[in-house]
Amino acid sequence: MSELKSYSKEQLEAFKNELEKQYAEFKAKGLNLDMSRGKPSLRQVTLSNAMIDVITSGHYEYQAHEGTECRNYGILDGIPECKELFAELLEVEKENVMVFGNSSLNMMFDYITQCMFSGSGGKPWKDQGKIKFLCPCPGYDRHFAILEYYGIEQINVDLTGNGPDMDQVEELIKDETVKGMFCVPKYSNPTGETYSAETVERIARMKPAAKDFRILWDNAYVIHDLYDETDELVNIFPRLKEYGNEDMVIEFASTSKITFPSAGVAALAASVNNCEMIRKRMTIQTIGHDKMNMLRHVMYFENLDGIKKHMALHKAILAPKFDAVIEAFENSLSEYAIASWTKPLGGYFISLDVMPGTAKRVGQLCKEAGVTLTSVGATFPYGIDPQDQNIRIAPSFPPVDELKVATDILCVAIKLAACEKLLSEAK
Amino acid sequence: MSELKSYSKEQLEAFKNELEKQYAEFKAKGLNLDMSRGKPSLRQVTLSNAMIDVITSGHYEYQAHEGTECRNYGILDGIPECKELFAELLEVEKENVMVFGNSSLNMMFDYITQCMFSGSGGKPWKDQGKIKFLCPCPGYDRHFAILEYYGIEQINVDLTGNGPDMDQVEELIKDETVKGMFCVPKYSNPTGETYSAETVERIARMKPAAKDFRILWDNAYVIHDLYDETDELVNIFPRLKEYGNEDMVIEFASTSKITFPSAGVAALAASVNNCEMIRKRMTIQTIGHDKMNMLRHVMYFENLDGIKKHMALHKAILAPKFDAVIEAFENSLSEYAIASWTKPLGGYFISLDVMPGTAKRVGQLCKEAGVTLTSVGATFPYGIDPQDQNIRIAPSFPPVDELKVATDILCVAIKLAACEKLLSEAK
Repeated sequence: MSELKSYSKEQLEAFKNELEKQYAEFKAKGLNLDMSRGKPSLRQVTLSNAMIDVITSGHYEYQAHEGTECRNYGILDGIPECKELFAELLEVEKENVMVFGNSSLNMMFDYITQCMFSGSGGKPWKDQGKIKFLCPCPGYDRHFAILEYYGIEQINVDLTGNGPDMDQVEELIKDETVKGMFCVPKYSNPTGETYSAETVERIARMKPAAKDFRILWDNAYVIHDLYDETDELVNIFPRLKEYGNEDMVIEFASTSKITFPSAGVAALAASVNNCEMIRKRMTIQTIGHDKMNMLRHVMYFENLDGIKKHMALHKAILAPKFDAVIEAFENSLSEYAIASWTKPLGGYFISLDVMPGTAKRVGQLCKEAGVTLTSVGATFPYGIDPQDQNIRIAPSFPPVDELKVATDILCVAIKLAACEKLLSEAK
Repeated sequence: MSELKSYSKEQLEAFKNELEKQYAEFKAKGLNLDMSRGKPSLRQVTLSNAMIDVITSGHYEYQAHEGTECRNYGILDGIPECKELFAELLEVEKENVMVFGNSSLNMMFDYITQCMFSGSGGKPWKDQGKIKFLCPCPGYDRHFAILEYYGIEQINVDLTGNGPDMDQVEELIKDETVKGMFCVPKYSNPTGETYSAETVERIARMKPAAKDFRILWDNAYVIHDLYDETDELVNIFPRLKEYGNEDMVIEFASTSKITFPSAGVAALAASVNNCEMIRKRMTIQTIGHDKMNMLRHVMYFENLDGIKKHMALHKAILAPKFDAVIEAFENSLSEYAIASWTKPLGGYFISLDVMPGTAKRVGQLCKEAGVTLTSVGATFPYGIDPQDQNIRIAPSFPPVDELKVATDILCVAIKLAACEKLLSEAK
């Protein structure tokens, strides 16, 4: 065996027949496997069960620091100790932290909404005509969806393995209709890359033509390592300060993939200016978020060290799943040189590039054999992968044995689609 | 003694001197009392402590009906059993219910935001030029604040004791720039009135010039009775259906004043059309709200009967506080005919009308003597009470003894301000 591209037409046809046979066998099993969503497994959510017990009816300290009763109204942007916990996690001052409800996505949606209606420092974005956003990709479909919802034009920016291609970014921000950028700076979704120190530095010193340019720094995987070897993300805030750019970045994080997805706590870190603007909107929007759940989190973890210990338990469950997928790719695909994939040190995804022009076909083959993948194309703005090659693999949810079967089917589909493509080109 | 207006100048001055002496004595005590916010007392929030225990780490049924795991991602608009609970509470079908996070205010803010950007059925409100909203008043300042935030012009509509003056409303909705109305139909904030069957009927059959007219039906006190005698609010949805007006009303409710304020669950009831439009936005905004807290509420109450039993406990704490305030008003104010007040059968407020032109002065006098009232004027759009007479009294939070002292001070302030006013007019 060797690179698939060097196969003769006859060899390709023979290989295709063999793959079709394998595929038919899988299909006959009537499987129902899911590798589509960055969703923790049941074993993972169960790790946090003990957090439920830290507050009971027999617990008489429902008061947060500074005397706020957590069972009642009061405090707009988070109890002090929860701010402290996030300040430690995000390496910022407590004064720069605001704690919200259960969803950082919701916070980002609301922030973009706020920019549309009230602006991010200048005129409301809705009153500035056609505006644009930079989207390093492949990226997170829900970021793109927010921009599409508000009619903000999305511009693809390549990811390099060290973050966005900063030559492209520095060129694009000369256009003052470019108002911002979505970033997942650590263990990026889906590529798993972490922005290098140089990338962070270049971002921090940017001078966009738009004075009200804003970066949504979605640090969703801030502490979500898979192995002992980890990526380190440089803290962007001190660098922003150095360049007088403190208002340019709003950082988002949550405990969704630390404790309970959808029953966690979300927070942001931002300049005093930005916090002030956000607080102004929040004052109208709500009386405050769930302080009982904030208290529960703080009492359970106590501090960053508590979170770290907890994350080691997630790591032990997740790493074997990533290993299984990557091992299968290496064994089944390497020799044919028809696909490449990332080997992330953290986060929730493996980014897989199949032969250009075959990703949709792979998705279809998998679906018909009972394996659900993230919608092919979803990792790009408007759902359009210009090369039709990227597939986001989410190994976290299925048990390892199911994951192995799903990956086997996926590998067959990748090879089959590649054969079909090469044969159609040979005609 | 008799009506203050019949006093001679000399009598007024003598009375004023006496009041000033009383006032000075109170002031000397250096009190710090708060009757400003519709906030449950500590005794009230403690009533729900047992709810905290219904889910523990030893509890193995984190699954909602239809198999959704509440500790993980999944379900956009509420677990089925929580929809059922609110459906029972609001007398609607489960299909018409959506459950959210902890705050109905947040839901209303988001709904108005959605109307601004995406419309309520027609063009986005932001693209329709100057638009207006009807505000029955005195009303809830946080409703008015949302409208002000979005630059929606607020039009005062009188409340009659049976809901808004429908003659005014029917006239005003002929203007197609009038896009909607905020209502608190039961135990209204602050007047405590409940819309009569006739009012509900006339609202249901309205034919506003604006086809995309929307009523935010904030049923915040849906089950918040104070006495055995209760007000009954007619369910508006069947009537809307009769008149082909199902899309005109969105109903909001929450458990904020049933279980824990800020750690409760909020929900809405609306037509399938409206739910669909809201769901479209939510899909972009969030993956879903806190299902653990929904489950906690459902397990604790089981059904509407459970909520009713629980509300009887609140009633027993709240009623004596309302009684104390009203008794003090009757004893200290009745004979002078300078003020009137509501005697609500439910809700969280007493609406007090003092002598026109003296409410601000009363607020100032109270403040200087250490009694915080709801900002005078706040019960009207833009904080402007055209008669300067309305004060919202919130008896729920302070213990009865503190409440009595605060009310005594308030009564002295009301009489003093009235004397000052009459004397200044006599000059």
